[in-house]
Amino acid sequence: MDATFRALSCDGERLIALDQTLLPFEERWVELRDADAVAAAIRRLAIRGAPLIGVAGAYGIALELARDPDRGLRRARDALREARPTAVNLAWAVDRVAGAVQAARGGDPAAAALAEARLIEAEEESASAALAAHGARLLEGHRRILTHCNTGALAAPGRGTALAVIAELHARGQLEKAIATEARPLLQGARLTVWELGRLAIPHELCVDSAAAGLILGGEVDAVIVGCDRVAANGDIANKVGTVALALAAAAAAIPFVVAGPLSTIDPSCPSGAEISIEERDDDEVRLLRDVELTLPGTRCRNPAFDVTPAALVGSLVTDAGVASSVDSAGVAELLAAAT
Amino acid sequence: MDATFRALSCDGERLIALDQTLLPFEERWVELRDADAVAAAIRRLAIRGAPLIGVAGAYGIALELARDPDRGLRRARDALREARPTAVNLAWAVDRVAGAVQAARGGDPAAAALAEARLIEAEEESASAALAAHGARLLEGHRRILTHCNTGALAAPGRGTALAVIAELHARGQLEKAIATEARPLLQGARLTVWELGRLAIPHELCVDSAAAGLILGGEVDAVIVGCDRVAANGDIANKVGTVALALAAAAAAIPFVVAGPLSTIDPSCPSGAEISIEERDDDEVRLLRDVELTLPGTRCRNPAFDVTPAALVGSLVTDAGVASSVDSAGVAELLAAAT
Repeated sequence: MDATFRALSCDGERLIALDQTLLPFEERWVELRDADAVAAAIRRLAIRGAPLIGVAGAYGIALELARDPDRGLRRARDALREARPTAVNLAWAVDRVAGAVQAARGGDPAAAALAEARLIEAEEESASAALAAHGARLLEGHRRILTHCNTGALAAPGRGTALAVIAELHARGQLEKAIATEARPLLQGARLTVWELGRLAIPHELCVDSAAAGLILGGEVDAVIVGCDRVAANGDIANKVGTVALALAAAAAAIPFVVAGPLSTIDPSCPSGAEISIEERDDDEVRLLRDVELTLPGTRCRNPAFDVTPAALVGSLVTDAGVASSVDSAGVAELLAAAT
Repeated sequence: MDATFRALSCDGERLIALDQTLLPFEERWVELRDADAVAAAIRRLAIRGAPLIGVAGAYGIALELARDPDRGLRRARDALREARPTAVNLAWAVDRVAGAVQAARGGDPAAAALAEARLIEAEEESASAALAAHGARLLEGHRRILTHCNTGALAAPGRGTALAVIAELHARGQLEKAIATEARPLLQGARLTVWELGRLAIPHELCVDSAAAGLILGGEVDAVIVGCDRVAANGDIANKVGTVALALAAAAAAIPFVVAGPLSTIDPSCPSGAEISIEERDDDEVRLLRDVELTLPGTRCRNPAFDVTPAALVGSLVTDAGVASSVDSAGVAELLAAAT
């Protein structure tokens, strides 16, 4: 693979996806042939990243309809919509494809689904480019940028979200370095972001999650940018667990804390962060790492995959439609209105 | 071993220490026979915890003087004082034993050193008990307590510092559960605190470091208590990396953030946190975990072992001499004055 790559592609019969659980140690592609297989790949994080699981879910419907035009739609929706609860993009994309299929009544449902899924992918790809430009303008002059988890081409079509902004700053010659947190428990930072930054030849350093606040308060970071899995109507955001700690540190150090995501990540039906369902994943993700025991067997764990950052701590919200004029109900509504 | 144990003991010729790098998977004791061996054990974290490395350093002088009464003192000081830079207890204890040896001029230097080291150990043990009582009184009514890294009997003589407070609350029937962070990179929480909590039959849960802020802001934690490696004269504290993020989260959630340490952890010669030397450890601690690769080989890492929490974020400072009336220069000075 060269520096630009697609984490997934679909020919109408198979969704071919890079298995992100194996990176950066192995680059293995998996072939998924129905909605159940796509849902399983999403659940086990072979495919991950809010915008990317939306696109994968959209293709999942098309695959299922190609196999069974009569009952495929219902089966695919059931399988996919609940695969992961926190990112809104999955339910949004699945519902959008389902709507397109219903609108095409009389035509070929599988073809209608595939066309809509391809449209979503193309839109997200162009959203990534627009978002990167808006974000790079916003962060001009900030040379040492810390990011959390993975938000690059492995997380969203195109160049991703937050990592696309970092890549754009680098392309403009304005970046000194990216600082990536490892993102325990599953190390999307250490495994995926480091891999992407290396491919993009962007200077970078890795740190454990808990080192970020000290680096920020110690004056070693100029700005923090993260992605998001859901933006509530009031501007509260859900993102990878650990995000709110970075927001608090950025606020304490008075540096920008920027959240980047396409409009598809905004959920106007969700009033605030309190209503966002936070996925709690298996204890073994904490107890084990790459099958090595880290603690005593049977230790009870808390393993929320996400946390909620209140709008008041989000300095800027960058989308493909631009930067929100304020991170609150008015600012979010304005973004959505401008886009329709 | 039963629930109470000593992480180290010295017979004048050998320091016998539980190798903390192997816990909880293996309980292996190492025998150290000179100051270099003690310094090496401290550097590789076989012996760790600010008060415990102070005691180990004190015994290290005695061991070296027993081998070479003429040049042992200088050699031991050189080897030990710099083994780890951030915790003040090590330099403090080494200097105190050296002072006792010089005061005993004409007597047996090794015997004088051993006696002083035993005295330091006994004092720290009684400090742990006093601190636990003060802390438990302070935190009465707080039933779900989060702690970071390891601060129990593996970190300090007696029952430890912050973990001694948790154990005391449990003994008083006032604790619902302890929540332990794993403390990447070396997992002192997942490995050592979980092991100690299990031995003490204290109900507990483990989480990744970055999950703590979300749990705190989500109302699932009643108080946070941590140890400290150095308290500056103005009340700033250095502690395990990740501490300042917990302090910020506790402040945002308006729950108590308590720092616990014996008076030996206070460094009146250090004006503020800005003057505390923060140890940066090897990149491989971040890149590898129990010899398993977590990221691409050669990835550049930042690996500060500690961070500084400003006094303004420290809700309470608990010592063996009581709780500071305020966490600032006046409060710290008052504690030290009361103790002399």
